[in-house]
Amino acid sequence: MNQSNEHDLQDHLRIKIDFNHMMSDQMGSQHGITLDEIDDLAETSKEIHSDLKNKREKGELPFLDLPYNREYIAEINEISYTIRKNFDNFVVLGIGGSALGGIAIQGALTNPFHNMLSKKERKGIPRVFFADNIDPDGFQRLLDFLDLKKTAFNVISKSGETAETMAQFLIVRERLIQLFGRDAYKKHIVITTDLKKGWLREIVNQEGFASLIVPQGVGGRFSVLSSVGLLPAAVMGVSIEELLAGAELMDRLCRSESLWENPAYMTAVLKYIACTKKGKAISIVMPYVDALKGVADWYCQIWAESLGKKFSLDNNVINAGQTPVRALGVTDQHSQLQLYIEGPFDKVITFIVVENYEKEVFIPPAYKDLEGVTYLGGHYLNELIKAEKVATELALKKNQRLNLTITLPTLDAFTLGQLFFFFELQTVFSGALYHIDPLNQPGVEQGKQFTYGLMGRKGFEDKKKDAQDSARKNKRYII
Amino acid sequence: MNQSNEHDLQDHLRIKIDFNHMMSDQMGSQHGITLDEIDDLAETSKEIHSDLKNKREKGELPFLDLPYNREYIAEINEISYTIRKNFDNFVVLGIGGSALGGIAIQGALTNPFHNMLSKKERKGIPRVFFADNIDPDGFQRLLDFLDLKKTAFNVISKSGETAETMAQFLIVRERLIQLFGRDAYKKHIVITTDLKKGWLREIVNQEGFASLIVPQGVGGRFSVLSSVGLLPAAVMGVSIEELLAGAELMDRLCRSESLWENPAYMTAVLKYIACTKKGKAISIVMPYVDALKGVADWYCQIWAESLGKKFSLDNNVINAGQTPVRALGVTDQHSQLQLYIEGPFDKVITFIVVENYEKEVFIPPAYKDLEGVTYLGGHYLNELIKAEKVATELALKKNQRLNLTITLPTLDAFTLGQLFFFFELQTVFSGALYHIDPLNQPGVEQGKQFTYGLMGRKGFEDKKKDAQDSARKNKRYII
Repeated sequence: MNQSNEHDLQDHLRIKIDFNHMMSDQMGSQHGITLDEIDDLAETSKEIHSDLKNKREKGELPFLDLPYNREYIAEINEISYTIRKNFDNFVVLGIGGSALGGIAIQGALTNPFHNMLSKKERKGIPRVFFADNIDPDGFQRLLDFLDLKKTAFNVISKSGETAETMAQFLIVRERLIQLFGRDAYKKHIVITTDLKKGWLREIVNQEGFASLIVPQGVGGRFSVLSSVGLLPAAVMGVSIEELLAGAELMDRLCRSESLWENPAYMTAVLKYIACTKKGKAISIVMPYVDALKGVADWYCQIWAESLGKKFSLDNNVINAGQTPVRALGVTDQHSQLQLYIEGPFDKVITFIVVENYEKEVFIPPAYKDLEGVTYLGGHYLNELIKAEKVATELALKKNQRLNLTITLPTLDAFTLGQLFFFFELQTVFSGALYHIDPLNQPGVEQGKQFTYGLMGRKGFEDKKKDAQDSARKNKRYII
Repeated sequence: MNQSNEHDLQDHLRIKIDFNHMMSDQMGSQHGITLDEIDDLAETSKEIHSDLKNKREKGELPFLDLPYNREYIAEINEISYTIRKNFDNFVVLGIGGSALGGIAIQGALTNPFHNMLSKKERKGIPRVFFADNIDPDGFQRLLDFLDLKKTAFNVISKSGETAETMAQFLIVRERLIQLFGRDAYKKHIVITTDLKKGWLREIVNQEGFASLIVPQGVGGRFSVLSSVGLLPAAVMGVSIEELLAGAELMDRLCRSESLWENPAYMTAVLKYIACTKKGKAISIVMPYVDALKGVADWYCQIWAESLGKKFSLDNNVINAGQTPVRALGVTDQHSQLQLYIEGPFDKVITFIVVENYEKEVFIPPAYKDLEGVTYLGGHYLNELIKAEKVATELALKKNQRLNLTITLPTLDAFTLGQLFFFFELQTVFSGALYHIDPLNQPGVEQGKQFTYGLMGRKGFEDKKKDAQDSARKNKRYII
């Protein structure tokens, strides 16, 4: 399947979007979207399309070109080969965009019990962990669990100064030095960071660690198809080539300026209208696939951080942003669905389903006399989960709750690559609709500076004082 | 610590709520809540208090009495002893309220690597799994992974007709029968269901499985302190007595009709005002504790399903409900915080922190010349995570984003029991403020009936036809 132009011709290999339940002729005029409302954005959409095209040609949207950026593949495969040969455990030290892509790939394409299998059963593939928090109990328990002799760490930070990741690195580094000495410890570490800038690159240069590059202009949340996501993928045994081929197919499917031929644009427009004209301030993403929980979390980052913006491009205060929420079918039918059906009309739900699961699981007939049980027998679990998804969709429809469905023919690296690219392009296009910059995150700066102040970083003394002043509490409000 | 009246005197063992950042004198008058707004609800709150008290005395809120309902403890401990003696794996078959409590307890109070440890390292405690979905790949992979000879299953469904759980049960039962025969297989199964009603009780009576009771009037999402949550807890080695003692302490702390002395009531009132008067339609719960992710998911169910209601008690259409969202500190600072800080003013954030983590993790000094790294050395990871929480809280404050903080002195069974009871009472009290029934879930009925229809259950033929008619799609809306 390496020939991506082959895929192109094979309609049955691509993901499809069904947005019937967004439209007024299906959902009624109070909440549904009309053809006119879509048409009203056709011109704007063409302008955005042309603007994105120009930017892309000028190299300003390099993450969209990652599917074609294959020069690093040999290097990634080589490093991953060395890791798989020498180590039993592979731990990513990274947070946010440095972890979510890898977690999504792991969840989607590897056995959920992989890390519990014996070395033999794992066929030489290391156990893979993502340390994406600094909870002292969580991190220490991970280190206690690992046999460091057999463990490689991939430190990922584009800026090279992410406080959490650098703290983890210092902790791990010291333990490795204690165990293996100042030279030998280095082979336990691979660093993924900017080519030139930042403290981590400085450290690579000083100490000579193996390293990979986060390409310029590829921000954390758009980095899954760079070495950030691809090294962990390769270590897990996932085909990088297939991931990129899938992304490439989606890129080519989304070259049209016509909304009706461009799934990323059309869904961006529909969600934009839903949010700004129909009051749907919340975007639920609800796969009916256990393995796609991580992709839903990845989506929640890209959607929240890209679109949640105070200022428009012309510097008006607009406080834009739709709040993403991850749900899981069928499980959350028993947790969140009551609210989705009966609560405020403030949600749009994106289902993700697969046409064909890998397994077929038969439900054996039994208890002929028990009417409330026996009807299940003779069916497949596959039928039950599909019936429940259809039932949920229809119950939502009957209650005028907007929803759309993304269908993957199967879940594999090729369809996952499509899905990543689809959501990335949808997000960038949405940013233009909201008239905001989807690529920055100015709102988190203040918190970082308070942290630097409180941790005693040089140059942030005034932030420390500000933090201490602001932190004064009225005791009456503590009970 | 079994003497719960001892705890009562020990202020330092109880959880505390800091709601400074909900109040107008801290947050400004546009978003902050005034003392007058709280006072306006004082009378209503007293009425609700008295109403709840009456209902409780009449036995209509039995889940609030679970901390005192200790007659089952001996039986639960006995069954758990047998399971631990005879089996290596313990699998809960259950969904929604039948799983979320157990998952929350497992996450909070057991080693996250427990299931990966060897039998010896586990000290006789089985690996514990929750099968709370019917994804064919997910379920089959679990069954493939387990050695069924060494596996016990706990089938949990109060109604005894939950389609997902019954399907799982039929699949597991057949495999066990194949392996062990029609008699011996029974010792692999414990059933938790209603005392008298439902198909599962019928099955227990026919076949003589070991069984436990979900007490009458205890709905799934309020069942964590019944046998539903307590058997898995006991199997995991968690002290049931401590969980219940914690819940009992919280119950006694919340006996006051005065909002200012009652943390469950006060926070219910604050969140109610935030939602109904300040436009905060979204309730984020964001622990800065890895181990509390599961508690946050449990909270999301109780909050969504209890308060998401179309009709008020006097049958007006109100479409009430605040959408709960789980986030995790510090991780989601790198995913969601940008939106929380700069996006719409539609959120209230509940932080959960622990005063004392179990571990202390030192960050070794290094790289003296690298200013952006060296400041971290010499501190503890514990300081860093606390600094980041304070920094986040202050950044939110500076941007007028409402938030409150629940502090646990430590995370153990006693504080977890407090937390469960706190959220349950907060939810029931909130239901009364919204003037809805927090104990039913009529909105999910329609979807269930469509599923029955599609799966060919007798009596639901018309639902099948309705589903098939409604499912017709316009091909133009599929791209």
